[in-house]
Amino acid sequence: MASRMGARLKSDAPGQRFGAVRALTEALAAPLSDADATVQSMEDASPAKWHLAHTTWFFESFVLRDHVEGYALFDEAWPFLFNSYYEAEGERHARPQRGMITRPSLDEILAYRRHVNEALGAALPGLGDRPRELVELGLNHEQQHQELLLMDIQHLFAQNPLEPALFDPAPAEPAEAPGPVEWIEGRTGEVEIGCGAADRREGFAFDCEGPRHKVYLNPHALADRPVTNGEWIEFIEAGGYRRHEHWLMEGWAWVEDNRVEAPLYWRKEKNGRWYRFGLAGRQPIDLSAPVSHVSYYEADAYASWTGFRLPSEAEWEDAAREADPAAGNQLDGAGEPRPRPARPGDGVKQLFGDVWEWTQSAYQPHPGFRAAPGAVGEYNGKFMVGQYVLKGASCATPRGHSRASYRNFFYPHMRWQFAGLRLARDL
Amino acid sequence: MASRMGARLKSDAPGQRFGAVRALTEALAAPLSDADATVQSMEDASPAKWHLAHTTWFFESFVLRDHVEGYALFDEAWPFLFNSYYEAEGERHARPQRGMITRPSLDEILAYRRHVNEALGAALPGLGDRPRELVELGLNHEQQHQELLLMDIQHLFAQNPLEPALFDPAPAEPAEAPGPVEWIEGRTGEVEIGCGAADRREGFAFDCEGPRHKVYLNPHALADRPVTNGEWIEFIEAGGYRRHEHWLMEGWAWVEDNRVEAPLYWRKEKNGRWYRFGLAGRQPIDLSAPVSHVSYYEADAYASWTGFRLPSEAEWEDAAREADPAAGNQLDGAGEPRPRPARPGDGVKQLFGDVWEWTQSAYQPHPGFRAAPGAVGEYNGKFMVGQYVLKGASCATPRGHSRASYRNFFYPHMRWQFAGLRLARDL
Amino acid sequence: MASRMGARLKSDAPGQRFGAVRALTEALAAPLSDADATVQSMEDASPAKWHLAHTTWFFESFVLRDHVEGYALFDEAWPFLFNSYYEAEGERHARPQRGMITRPSLDEILAYRRHVNEALGAALPGLGDRPRELVELGLNHEQQHQELLLMDIQHLFAQNPLEPALFDPAPAEPAEAPGPVEWIEGRTGEVEIGCGAADRREGFAFDCEGPRHKVYLNPHALADRPVTNGEWIEFIEAGGYRRHEHWLMEGWAWVEDNRVEAPLYWRKEKNGRWYRFGLAGRQPIDLSAPVSHVSYYEADAYASWTGFRLPSEAEWEDAAREADPAAGNQLDGAGEPRPRPARPGDGVKQLFGDVWEWTQSAYQPHPGFRAAPGAVGEYNGKFMVGQYVLKGASCATPRGHSRASYRNFFYPHMRWQFAGLRLARDL
Amino acid sequence: MASRMGARLKSDAPGQRFGAVRALTEALAAPLSDADATVQSMEDASPAKWHLAHTTWFFESFVLRDHVEGYALFDEAWPFLFNSYYEAEGERHARPQRGMITRPSLDEILAYRRHVNEALGAALPGLGDRPRELVELGLNHEQQHQELLLMDIQHLFAQNPLEPALFDPAPAEPAEAPGPVEWIEGRTGEVEIGCGAADRREGFAFDCEGPRHKVYLNPHALADRPVTNGEWIEFIEAGGYRRHEHWLMEGWAWVEDNRVEAPLYWRKEKNGRWYRFGLAGRQPIDLSAPVSHVSYYEADAYASWTGFRLPSEAEWEDAAREADPAAGNQLDGAGEPRPRPARPGDGVKQLFGDVWEWTQSAYQPHPGFRAAPGAVGEYNGKFMVGQYVLKGASCATPRGHSRASYRNFFYPHMRWQFAGLRLARDL
Repeated sequence: MASRMGARLKSDAPGQRFGAVRALTEALAAPLSDADATVQSMEDASPAKWHLAHTTWFFESFVLRDHVEGYALFDEAWPFLFNSYYEAEGERHARPQRGMITRPSLDEILAYRRHVNEALGAALPGLGDRPRELVELGLNHEQQHQELLLMDIQHLFAQNPLEPALFDPAPAEPAEAPGPVEWIEGRTGEVEIGCGAADRREGFAFDCEGPRHKVYLNPHALADRPVTNGEWIEFIEAGGYRRHEHWLMEGWAWVEDNRVEAPLYWRKEKNGRWYRFGLAGRQPIDLSAPVSHVSYYEADAYASWTGFRLPSEAEWEDAAREADPAAGNQLDGAGEPRPRPARPGDGVKQLFGDVWEWTQSAYQPHPGFRAAPGAVGEYNGKFMVGQYVLKGASCATPRGHSRASYRNFFYPHMRWQFAGLRLARDL
Repeated sequence: MASRMGARLKSDAPGQRFGAVRALTEALAAPLSDADATVQSMEDASPAKWHLAHTTWFFESFVLRDHVEGYALFDEAWPFLFNSYYEAEGERHARPQRGMITRPSLDEILAYRRHVNEALGAALPGLGDRPRELVELGLNHEQQHQELLLMDIQHLFAQNPLEPALFDPAPAEPAEAPGPVEWIEGRTGEVEIGCGAADRREGFAFDCEGPRHKVYLNPHALADRPVTNGEWIEFIEAGGYRRHEHWLMEGWAWVEDNRVEAPLYWRKEKNGRWYRFGLAGRQPIDLSAPVSHVSYYEADAYASWTGFRLPSEAEWEDAAREADPAAGNQLDGAGEPRPRPARPGDGVKQLFGDVWEWTQSAYQPHPGFRAAPGAVGEYNGKFMVGQYVLKGASCATPRGHSRASYRNFFYPHMRWQFAGLRLARDL
Repeated sequence: MASRMGARLKSDAPGQRFGAVRALTEALAAPLSDADATVQSMEDASPAKWHLAHTTWFFESFVLRDHVEGYALFDEAWPFLFNSYYEAEGERHARPQRGMITRPSLDEILAYRRHVNEALGAALPGLGDRPRELVELGLNHEQQHQELLLMDIQHLFAQNPLEPALFDPAPAEPAEAPGPVEWIEGRTGEVEIGCGAADRREGFAFDCEGPRHKVYLNPHALADRPVTNGEWIEFIEAGGYRRHEHWLMEGWAWVEDNRVEAPLYWRKEKNGRWYRFGLAGRQPIDLSAPVSHVSYYEADAYASWTGFRLPSEAEWEDAAREADPAAGNQLDGAGEPRPRPARPGDGVKQLFGDVWEWTQSAYQPHPGFRAAPGAVGEYNGKFMVGQYVLKGASCATPRGHSRASYRNFFYPHMRWQFAGLRLARDL
Repeated sequence: MASRMGARLKSDAPGQRFGAVRALTEALAAPLSDADATVQSMEDASPAKWHLAHTTWFFESFVLRDHVEGYALFDEAWPFLFNSYYEAEGERHARPQRGMITRPSLDEILAYRRHVNEALGAALPGLGDRPRELVELGLNHEQQHQELLLMDIQHLFAQNPLEPALFDPAPAEPAEAPGPVEWIEGRTGEVEIGCGAADRREGFAFDCEGPRHKVYLNPHALADRPVTNGEWIEFIEAGGYRRHEHWLMEGWAWVEDNRVEAPLYWRKEKNGRWYRFGLAGRQPIDLSAPVSHVSYYEADAYASWTGFRLPSEAEWEDAAREADPAAGNQLDGAGEPRPRPARPGDGVKQLFGDVWEWTQSAYQPHPGFRAAPGAVGEYNGKFMVGQYVLKGASCATPRGHSRASYRNFFYPHMRWQFAGLRLARDL
């Protein structure tokens, strides 16, 4: 089971994991200018500076302030700025206004990080179980913000007609186009999903991943790999974005209102060919790689066009029960994070890495779920309405942050995350 | 099994059920003036005239036009006006503009109804199986619009400071306040829900109710009755609408943006007491009756405040498997439809009638669901995103239209339907 | 001077004018159904029922309630519904909600009118000067609402794909196309405009028309007639709606946001020809008649395209100083109000009747203007920002309600009024 | 006359004025970080980087590109980014998206400025009359953007709860509270206003300031000084923001929708006292200084409350005909620009400097006005709708940029400019 769970803060190396996670965030932000790190490109996104500070505020508030005697806040005025949505932590700066905070500067935020890193590094060996759990929660929280930071920078740079790049483009890796999908039959009958108490003793999991519980799986099969860019272009060329009969009513209104005709960040050259705008700027589309940056509406319409459907969360999670969550194409800080073609192999491939996979399951509580009390209990439960579960991990998810019970969630119209889909079918 | 399903069009009484359903619609509309029947009070609502005509258009298009030789449309221009959302049926009048159609008048719409009633009555004995199925679908469709018509009129009249009434108020029926909730344990393990092929041979069901399939129920119990108005007032008085910690984030934003402080249609007298605006105008609140006109957000917040939760669809449906769906407080056309106190008795009470009950289940397809081909296939499947399932029936649901597998659905912020809640708990 | 002013309530025929004005309103509303009279088609418009009641409320409140002893309100609850914007008169029903008032019915509103007509008819002979002035104000107020009622009904019927008609179409009156515009030089130097105290002794004028004051006119000329539909089609065909260089920046944004390509109510047949939707339904466009239903933006763009400009209010008013305001094509209740071709003649033609004429003058107070104290003082002054003056009268303006000093006003984007333009030039 | 006009580019010092104006812009931007210079705080504002680049683009496009052989654009991609609204110059980056351009950086923009400064400095001696006129136009254009840059930075910093400052606060200058307003009678009869051809030979003026033309002034007087902060606090304390009877209807809606209760940038301390947020951060309110940052609605309501009115443009301009436009409290780059108390003296004081003064005159063309052909002709004329003229100059207007004929203009709800008011009255 241990392989399914993220690494945990071990008592013999208290600061090492802390240092590594914090350093990755700083490495991701290193190419950013003060301006890059300040601007908020839409209400759903946050400035990089805010990600850098908010993840630090988490440690400062819930560990240093609450559990380390004598700790003085770096700046009394900053908690108001860098609290995200924890009502129990008091008033906070309105989310759509985050991009107005030109000061403190990026340099000052980095100094804040150093200050808290040092204080926490010094305090860590002496911390009891509860604050140590909060440190682990803070690190997983920070890993989520690493992916958000990349998503938000990509969205910001996409608004700039000059198409700036954060990473150098990777050299081309010619890949054979994958053959047709193979259907891998899943288990039928009672199975267990979710993260249980025993799992938590072995590694971290968010509260919403549990408890472990039984579900009944009806006969079904999953595609061995996600839908590729090449297949998506067929959908476009078959008029997929113009044929209402494949779309949910709400999705069809979304297509019409926003004149959607391709995944987010796809753009047409003057010669009519598509390219994608990515974290390495303007790039050709890799036909063999999984399609990314599609909404739930698009994923559902594509599935409808093929005559199949999206998997349920339970089907996906059961299929992933034996897979190694650290083996895929995930974020390690080197080179542009981008979905890559499936590597040859048997069974259900690319479960962890490349793209998050939309499921047809709404993000609702598992049977028996109870939110933790206090501010940290606001972490997950209060989002359980109107959103859909995405499973797995993407090329922008930090390695070591993944497990089968992980529940990512977004609203059905959102697509600035690295989200694709895998087909499923009833048997 | 027959008792779980709505009545079906029997070959020995072809026109009787048709006539009865159509007549009830006309009876509900009888007290309306031409103006009452024309105005659309919000985008989600439709004018009564539109309900009267749209249900008629359904029979005219899918039965008379498609299956009865020589039938001439009542008016060639009307299908454009009275199609609702069937993309396959071509262009249609924009939904938010439905209230602009002052002409044709209510009298002309009623003439349209008579024309189609007569043509269909004459054709019915000679119809084959497929058109007869469509007639049955049309009648169930019309029953849904009967409830919508009442909801929409109530919403319209609620905009009028003069507080008009559609029905005479019912005489007071003093009822003892119900005691504390009793918890009725549900079944644990594999159960079957949904409507199967065998059920359909016995009675009508919508496509989205099937197929019949297995689910696993974890240990749980349901309250024996819905939450009452008296209990809701306790919630209000305990500051329930002002304590963020009980609310979903989206729900809290909804409360703040709309300054919600009570169920829809509750209003405060100058003396600080609440009254409700209903289909019989201004009325006192019956403390023993189920609370109605609450959103999913409110239902979830109330449940959170009590420390319990909403039931899942499967838990509810399994609990209702033996209940008589025609025995409750439902619409029969006599007197103001309003939720009433539970009658004494054992077990899970008030499942059908009084109020629809919010579940924590998103309205997604059952395993194995496939939409029917063609325009009538647009009936249910295309709404399967972002909405929640409500089970049972309300005081405004026509008697004979209910069954355990029935899936009503609304967005979480909606509350102009007669919607309440029943608590559930994990065991 | 008398010819410039509207008729006044003479002491020897106290009830005759009152009866005539009130009867015209009722005649205009006679073809309306209860539904027609109830619906509000946009926020700027009001339901016909509201016009019928509000004009009555004016007499009831400011004359009967305030000046006739023993008068009892027809219904205590109605003033809240039928006050328009008089803050001093207390709370009132929100303007965008006027279309929700399905009850009272049209018949009840007509009964209200009869009640107030009778009470006021009985009281009139005994009224003193101040209430008699208020009656005269009320009658002029009602004449304004007669035109608004027609504008609002046209707008409502325009939303209906069935294109209903309020009037029978007039027989075709073949007219010779007018020749090119003739330029009529205006006076240069100091002139007087506005309505003075002496004028008011002879006839009614609104407070905003005064005081009489001097202005300086720079050398200029006015076109002898308004721009015609035929000329407007040339503008369309020359790409007038697609050439930004002729448009005010705000106007260009309005064109693009609303995809404007012709005057309001112009529609293209499938054969590419334009027709207009008017109060007699679908009608051919009379090329020789003045263009109507254009916004200030369109009027300004057209003028810019020709190299000329719109007149100032003072230029127009001085040119009209000798014209007979009762001689033009104005509302008399018989047949569809519609702009008609200029009749042959010399000088500045069609000043009163056919179409209101946009001027380049913002609706600001005349030098020395002071609003009247109290509720009736809210009549005009509080609108003096952001709107433009239109001069003259239209085919829907009641005859007898016009004079050179009259100041009509609308926002620059509005065009549901009968508004056209006349060119001017500097000399 | 020369004293009324801005300085002009003289042939004997071709580069000196150019260098001085350009250097002031850079000095104003010097304290800004890259982030400060990038963010756009509202749609009406622009980032400082954009001001720095756009003013440079003006010289590059209209002088260097069009009139200097062999000049190569600094960057081919930048004109798309830094064109403001010149339709004739082709497609441009959408205004609300200006704040998304984190790259080029502030340093790159400053390099762009140096490049163009050098190229233009080198070319200037050899330029003909037309390009030299365009340079002068560009300098006046840049001076306008100097004030806009300050306005926009103040607005941006006002969004930041940390209340950053651009300037050090000025030392307190105790000033005696001014006594009651003195009324200075203006001229009655025909006067001339506007900028004529002769004036232009002496100094620069924008096209919209002309032509010189006659107007008639009715008997009137102007207050000797603008309304002060102390007087405004009396208005607040008298309930001025809560009494509808003093407000234009549109203004009252604006007050209610935005919950306005004081000038922009005024904030209440916890002790109930007002302070202002300015370019030097949080500052006490100087009761003797002119009130600033009020909208037209507020200015009009204040005037109505006093029983007086706003001046017309002509009244103001005639009163200023002899005043020295360079003698007031204007921008010179040293210290926080802020309105200061009137200095003792006779006559109409503070006409130029401290605050722009709202007039009751809409921004419409002067008689005989014609826009220049081509892109530079888009400069002023296309804004002539819906806006009001402000006269004079503010503490943030560059010295040397002012004259009596100057026409500043804003929409009535805008108040992020340094705008106050002076009372006028009819005699």
